[in-house]
Amino acid sequence: MDRKEEIKKRIQEARKRQMFTVDEYVGGIVKGDRMILAKAITLIESYKEEHQTIAKEIIDKCLQIKSQSLRIGITGTPGVGKSTFIESLGMHVLRKGKKIAVLAIDPTSQMSHGSILGDKTRMEELSHQENAFIRPSAAGTSLGGVARKTREVMILCEAAGYDTIFIETVGVGQSEVAVHSMTDFFLLLLLPGGGDELQGIKRGIVEMADAIVVNKSDINPVLAKQSKKAYRNAVHLFPQKESKWVVKTLMCSALQNEGIDAVWQTILNYQDLTIQNDYFHQKRQQQSDYWFKQALQQGLEQLIKNHPQISQEMKLLKQQIFQGKMSPFAAADKIISLLK
Amino acid sequence: MDRKEEIKKRIQEARKRQMFTVDEYVGGIVKGDRMILAKAITLIESYKEEHQTIAKEIIDKCLQIKSQSLRIGITGTPGVGKSTFIESLGMHVLRKGKKIAVLAIDPTSQMSHGSILGDKTRMEELSHQENAFIRPSAAGTSLGGVARKTREVMILCEAAGYDTIFIETVGVGQSEVAVHSMTDFFLLLLLPGGGDELQGIKRGIVEMADAIVVNKSDINPVLAKQSKKAYRNAVHLFPQKESKWVVKTLMCSALQNEGIDAVWQTILNYQDLTIQNDYFHQKRQQQSDYWFKQALQQGLEQLIKNHPQISQEMKLLKQQIFQGKMSPFAAADKIISLLK
Repeated sequence: MDRKEEIKKRIQEARKRQMFTVDEYVGGIVKGDRMILAKAITLIESYKEEHQTIAKEIIDKCLQIKSQSLRIGITGTPGVGKSTFIESLGMHVLRKGKKIAVLAIDPTSQMSHGSILGDKTRMEELSHQENAFIRPSAAGTSLGGVARKTREVMILCEAAGYDTIFIETVGVGQSEVAVHSMTDFFLLLLLPGGGDELQGIKRGIVEMADAIVVNKSDINPVLAKQSKKAYRNAVHLFPQKESKWVVKTLMCSALQNEGIDAVWQTILNYQDLTIQNDYFHQKRQQQSDYWFKQALQQGLEQLIKNHPQISQEMKLLKQQIFQGKMSPFAAADKIISLLK
Repeated sequence: MDRKEEIKKRIQEARKRQMFTVDEYVGGIVKGDRMILAKAITLIESYKEEHQTIAKEIIDKCLQIKSQSLRIGITGTPGVGKSTFIESLGMHVLRKGKKIAVLAIDPTSQMSHGSILGDKTRMEELSHQENAFIRPSAAGTSLGGVARKTREVMILCEAAGYDTIFIETVGVGQSEVAVHSMTDFFLLLLLPGGGDELQGIKRGIVEMADAIVVNKSDINPVLAKQSKKAYRNAVHLFPQKESKWVVKTLMCSALQNEGIDAVWQTILNYQDLTIQNDYFHQKRQQQSDYWFKQALQQGLEQLIKNHPQISQEMKLLKQQIFQGKMSPFAAADKIISLLK
């Protein structure tokens, strides 16, 4: 009690001077202080080195705080109704007593604060809920950088007690791979259509999905049912998942709140199955491994870029490769020998 | 004339002592000496460092020898008749006055000399031709390593005057990406079937294909025609290629030598189009860039592995990530700081 009081007091003091120590940040986050959580996220999103240093310490301390979270990735082409869907599903989950955080990965949202979730009014009801925390996509020039920041923000949200994390992205490319590799469950949202719809979406994305949900079923229920069937048939041709989970196809109307409970039940069924067969845990381990390799690769690229002699040599070698005077392998060997 | 005579003499001498200098290797290769070419390839395929050192010098010198080659990648599931197809197409191309080399990428063929092309009797006619050079897949534990060696062997073959290169692989996974990224034209060989056939092949592979050829059309011509049509319809749903080339679907019977000329004509049409619109050249540049990045990444991984302190730290960090005590990003940063 005394300890809690003390932290509270220090945070209040720090607020006045608008500066916090790492412990104050972590204390505030664990206490569920939204303002401090938001400020810590701003540090993560900053590209300034002093901010990154503090951010790393906060993240490492937040990792120590164990949480039983469920991470849900949601994708779908623009216009499919992702925001309305997340609002409807989010409100449903809140009523079950959960705390939710809604994040996004949108590498196209360069220096502005993103098109996805940028406009909070798109999830008006959800954004006013005490137990919901909504944060737009981090800005950045590379998908890797944006994804990394989102993954770090997620760790802070979990430490702050948000046990259900939604990560939204657009259904067009590589960003799905990033979302898939940081979530437990991956949901593909589609519109009612003749089944041709699936052709426009890269097969890789469809193969990642744990559930395919046909939204806006209220507009044309017959067509929605047809599409659901077509998607189910298409999905059956795919190989069995490592999780042993059989991909579900569902339909709903997020606007009318129809079919939302079935979606949530499906996600819970998936969680039950994969916790039981240990895939849930294994997948998280694989994901950590994946992010470690990714970060290592990015770091090495940065190291070469920042090294005056090596980056100079890189330019020369690239020219020689370009002119066909040197094999790419010999050039790589030269760079490596400079690092030794 | 004198110079040529001199090289010839030195090679003969070297043959006696079974050792060659780099210049002798290169001289022999350029002269078209198959025995010396084969010996140089053995150096490339060796994992001994002294062999690798000589091999690199040979490759860099062979790169200086300009050749106008055409590189053709061929894939298809086992049983589709790749060997018979390459034999039939290869004999056809030989009759056009070309010199051909047949290589392979098969990372599954560990320490043995490969299942693909391992048995030369599978291309019996071709293997007896003066102007054909057949070499099985290099052995190795990683696809990256095997692919690199094949790409290097290709450079030697081109220096030796082989102007038409076939690179064969099996239609099941990542090795297609490797073959695609070192060839100008990519051909997918399929069996007659109801179109379901395409479902079994990863969409990414189908999307890479510049031509889809239905083989064994003699067995059931009606079914073959149907499949050709089904594949054509499927292919039309794919986005336009950067090369502006419209993917062709063809049928043939390699065993009966039917439809082989049309396949060759298609490949030549592709070459004409892409040389005209400069995509041929651009693609080769992109490929060099790709291999440079790949080699750099592999080299860096090797560097870390061979560094006692860093590799030790890697083990510890991996454990901490595994236990959820450290974020993968923080761990990567630690490794990078050790390399600085």
